[in-house]
Amino acid sequence: MKQYQLAVFLFSVVSSCLQAQTPTKKLEPVSFSQVTITDNFWKPKLDKVATTTLQACIYQTEDKTARIRNFEKVARKQNEKHEGIYYDDSDVYKALEAIAYSLKNHPDATLEKKADEWIDKIAAAQQPDGYLNTYYTLTDLSKRWTDMEKHEDYNAGHLMEAAVAYYNTTGKRKLLDVAIKFADHIDTTFRLQNRHWVSGHQEIELALMKLYHTTKNDRYLQLADWFLNQRGHGYGKGVIWDEWKDPKYCQDDVPVKEQKEITGHAVRAMYLYTGAADVAAATKDPGYLKAMNNVWEDVIFRNMYITGGIGSSGKNEGFSKDYDLPNEQAYCETCASVGMVFWNQRMNLLTGDAKFVDVLERSLYNGALDGLSLSGDRFFYGNPLASSGQHSRSEWFGTACCPSNISRLIASLGDYIYGQSDNGLWVNLFVGSNTTLKVGKNSIPVIMETNYPWDGKVKLTLNPAKSVKSAVHLRIPGWVKGVPAPGDLYSFTSNAPAKYEILLNGKPINYKEENGYAVLERSWRKSDVVELNLPMEVKRIAAKQDLTYTIDRIALQRGPLVYCVEGADNNGNAWNIILPENATLTTIKHNVLNEPVIAIQSKAPVITTTLNGAGVQTQQKEVIAIPYYTWANRGKNQMQVWLPTKVKEVKINSGN
Amino acid sequence: MKQYQLAVFLFSVVSSCLQAQTPTKKLEPVSFSQVTITDNFWKPKLDKVATTTLQACIYQTEDKTARIRNFEKVARKQNEKHEGIYYDDSDVYKALEAIAYSLKNHPDATLEKKADEWIDKIAAAQQPDGYLNTYYTLTDLSKRWTDMEKHEDYNAGHLMEAAVAYYNTTGKRKLLDVAIKFADHIDTTFRLQNRHWVSGHQEIELALMKLYHTTKNDRYLQLADWFLNQRGHGYGKGVIWDEWKDPKYCQDDVPVKEQKEITGHAVRAMYLYTGAADVAAATKDPGYLKAMNNVWEDVIFRNMYITGGIGSSGKNEGFSKDYDLPNEQAYCETCASVGMVFWNQRMNLLTGDAKFVDVLERSLYNGALDGLSLSGDRFFYGNPLASSGQHSRSEWFGTACCPSNISRLIASLGDYIYGQSDNGLWVNLFVGSNTTLKVGKNSIPVIMETNYPWDGKVKLTLNPAKSVKSAVHLRIPGWVKGVPAPGDLYSFTSNAPAKYEILLNGKPINYKEENGYAVLERSWRKSDVVELNLPMEVKRIAAKQDLTYTIDRIALQRGPLVYCVEGADNNGNAWNIILPENATLTTIKHNVLNEPVIAIQSKAPVITTTLNGAGVQTQQKEVIAIPYYTWANRGKNQMQVWLPTKVKEVKINSGN
Repeated sequence: MKQYQLAVFLFSVVSSCLQAQTPTKKLEPVSFSQVTITDNFWKPKLDKVATTTLQACIYQTEDKTARIRNFEKVARKQNEKHEGIYYDDSDVYKALEAIAYSLKNHPDATLEKKADEWIDKIAAAQQPDGYLNTYYTLTDLSKRWTDMEKHEDYNAGHLMEAAVAYYNTTGKRKLLDVAIKFADHIDTTFRLQNRHWVSGHQEIELALMKLYHTTKNDRYLQLADWFLNQRGHGYGKGVIWDEWKDPKYCQDDVPVKEQKEITGHAVRAMYLYTGAADVAAATKDPGYLKAMNNVWEDVIFRNMYITGGIGSSGKNEGFSKDYDLPNEQAYCETCASVGMVFWNQRMNLLTGDAKFVDVLERSLYNGALDGLSLSGDRFFYGNPLASSGQHSRSEWFGTACCPSNISRLIASLGDYIYGQSDNGLWVNLFVGSNTTLKVGKNSIPVIMETNYPWDGKVKLTLNPAKSVKSAVHLRIPGWVKGVPAPGDLYSFTSNAPAKYEILLNGKPINYKEENGYAVLERSWRKSDVVELNLPMEVKRIAAKQDLTYTIDRIALQRGPLVYCVEGADNNGNAWNIILPENATLTTIKHNVLNEPVIAIQSKAPVITTTLNGAGVQTQQKEVIAIPYYTWANRGKNQMQVWLPTKVKEVKINSGN
Repeated sequence: MKQYQLAVFLFSVVSSCLQAQTPTKKLEPVSFSQVTITDNFWKPKLDKVATTTLQACIYQTEDKTARIRNFEKVARKQNEKHEGIYYDDSDVYKALEAIAYSLKNHPDATLEKKADEWIDKIAAAQQPDGYLNTYYTLTDLSKRWTDMEKHEDYNAGHLMEAAVAYYNTTGKRKLLDVAIKFADHIDTTFRLQNRHWVSGHQEIELALMKLYHTTKNDRYLQLADWFLNQRGHGYGKGVIWDEWKDPKYCQDDVPVKEQKEITGHAVRAMYLYTGAADVAAATKDPGYLKAMNNVWEDVIFRNMYITGGIGSSGKNEGFSKDYDLPNEQAYCETCASVGMVFWNQRMNLLTGDAKFVDVLERSLYNGALDGLSLSGDRFFYGNPLASSGQHSRSEWFGTACCPSNISRLIASLGDYIYGQSDNGLWVNLFVGSNTTLKVGKNSIPVIMETNYPWDGKVKLTLNPAKSVKSAVHLRIPGWVKGVPAPGDLYSFTSNAPAKYEILLNGKPINYKEENGYAVLERSWRKSDVVELNLPMEVKRIAAKQDLTYTIDRIALQRGPLVYCVEGADNNGNAWNIILPENATLTTIKHNVLNEPVIAIQSKAPVITTTLNGAGVQTQQKEVIAIPYYTWANRGKNQMQVWLPTKVKEVKINSGN
């Protein structure tokens, strides 16, 4: 046996061990409702969501579109017509869910009143048997539950998520009771009669798991698992797919536990695997974890953009083939990045591995956050990595999944910062905030202070009432390390690992590294201060050669933020810039509209025209790169994330 | 009333007069079966189709795919499974139709034997009541005629076209009788019972008209008209379109006679209007002509590429919005250009206006011909006007409409060259050929000799047995004229009208110009020679400013041929060339593989790299442009039709 064969053999033993492991949840989540955000970077965004984005959602829901009127019409029972699309109910629920989260960090009596008013309307539209769907009730109720593609269960799932969130913030049960009644109706109609139903758009699985954790009623766990098990047995044939529409589009080609590849519609996939991870954590079924590990690697190693965005193709709003990641044509739906945050959080809870939070952070700060304008009232549905200037944010969309999705994600940021268990506490994201974590029987109040992502200094103050022996896990972000994991699509061009520093009460402390965390085990006392200093130099990133669209190009990253060049900072152009490998990169304070950012600056060759446009030449000019999430806030503009290091090919005036 | 108001008023009077006109067919078509092609340009292509392209079609139909096996399975009645797609029968019929045309100019006993063999298999698969469709017969015959989207009538139409063509060439009736029996079955099933049926993919209308002209049986005319009249009344709702799929996709939003805009799937639209023009010519119904004039203007003035290609969007294989004509992303399906030839021929027959042949010629020599490789065995489904090098021709396609469509078009070229009527004869295309035209009661043998499109000299010899008074109509191509028609998308940058010359027996002759033709009225005698000399200088073309993708760009045209620059002739690049307005253009003899062509040459600024690729500059270099139809025959390659005249924007290494 040759050496490399041995290595392959050992690797496959290790990986099959990993795959066969029984999932025991390593971390318990910490609810947004227990976390107060004080962060310099995020708090203004949460406030913007509360004061502007949610107002836009309310305006669209109440005035501009018929979304809330459909509920009123159901209650009035006057045979009025349904307006809009069959999945529009979900937008109401998602806006409501976002309001619920927002009320925690930005209490607002008017918003809460609006939510209560909507909840009354929703409750009044529920049928006596628990069914709740304005599309079928206003068109033909006898046709309900006849078309798996019509998002009845998807809408139901968003109702449940909103209900749980609103209950968690306010303690009010009205919407929760509506959701429970509807969930019971669904359980009775399908699982208890073993009537097959393959969700055309997954969502209900993860929602049922929230309902399960909130009510502790086991039937919702069983129903979530039942929905997962419906897939891959051909029940969706001729209904949600047929010989001309690939079953992979909705991940219905093989049973979930046998899935190995990421396929199809990106948001459907993310919601599916989020629900599957939730079920795996509760049932300890190793099948789901094995499948998800394989699928996750397929996403990360072959199908994810540097922004954490996924789903490159607009045709199916999803995945095309491995390594097919065009930049200008990138679809990268905002909702898919939001889904990446959901799924990777669950994977982290399940495994205790920080690599999932590395991905979560990448999607959150880049692919997802880009979905919302700095002004808070404009949205991207797709998030391309290059633009000839054709892209601009919209006020709203016919299919309006993205605005409320990015709203609820930002408003629920508190869900993603910490983890806790009997053995210790986890810091996953670096966000200024206060919370109290439960470690075994002890409560540990925690204060995090930081100017992240602009600065790498994170200060954590622990305030247990009495001394507590416990392990503090600080995530050391993957971007700190110089060496890519095997299979990684992207790597820093410098292999020197950057150094980070951890101090306890101002002095160096011993710690071990485990699963991407620095683990500090000791007896913690009131006012203990842990300081983490992350190195924030600018990194050049190269992609694997398999990615044809990024050959001889680099991207820039600093901390978790991916950068781009935009015309607005560069004399109107962004496609004429060359950034040779030896160009010096410095950072400067900069403003994108009212957003203060750290920008990256370089003197680099820029192509300019000569002779009335009949020729060109290269000039050394100052080039500014800004955080990707801030682009497209200053009008239509050229933009690029991946910058050429040398010229192989030149295109003139190509709006193709 | 101000002057411009008067003008508008007069214009609308004129146009409503035009629209209200009763269509009386101005020209009778001349069948391919009456025309022998001898042309330097086309004859080798017809031979290539016979010797290579049809062999590829046969190989795919018999060996590589199950297309012919499905017919065998039906005849065997052993419950075997259908293979492939429900519209695959049509590929067999279209290949058969192409063989039929080909046998005329390239007799081939083996090919004819193959056709007879296929016809036997097709006939054996016909059901006793006339129904013939392998998909439904092999899956579930009870489900036939339940889904308007499943192309049963589309397949039937292609059967009829093949049957008529094969009968015209060979005089053999077997397939014609099969087609008649099937047509009768359809007529009985639908029209005679007034059972609504909106064709999901139009084709049967034009095919029925061919059957009508061949059999003279009025019921096929009535059935064609009935099919046209089914559209636009909502019968297709929930079947071929629904609230999520626009009825405009299949031109079912308003009745055909009320249609004003070109919409939806390009091939469906072309086949529809071809059938409508055929019916209008037979029934003299002014409604269709009015609609088609409006729709035609919408195509030509706002939605046609310079290549005569249409349908810019791959999403619906069709039209998007007015003026949305991207070059690299152009879909421009080969079949849609073939459809443009069909429709414009019918419009010319109906109106006697040469402007339709101008469009026909543009589509034929550029958008359509580009669909077939010079080798004859590779195909383009889409025909973009720019390429970063990602495009290459394929051996075949899953949906294989294009290969047999371009085959049958080229093989049936004889259909498009001449027209005839009681009053005279028409020369529409300049193609070396012999035929005998019927002018009133007289027969006039005609010989055309030319080296068109490379040379503008066309020699026509008339050989009536005795002196015949008649009008010879010579089309003076639109591209000869310097002034664009109002509304034209494209115009020559020089407004000086080029001069053409007409000689009779070597001496200048008087003629009048009418509807785009030079009309020579006299008594014609044996051996009269008419010589037409068309000016063949290179033309620069500019597009209307509404076309955003072509701003500050020009295209090159010589004769009917649109040109492009391809990397293969220009050091591997085509996107780095600037062609300033004052650049001198000359022509040279050139070869693209084995195809001798006239190329266009210029010394022009070309962008080249400096300093190991870290900078660029412009150098004067020799640039070669080749006829568009010859590109993509020398490997993957950059290509552009529209060349920048100045530099406004530069993109580096942009495979986007």
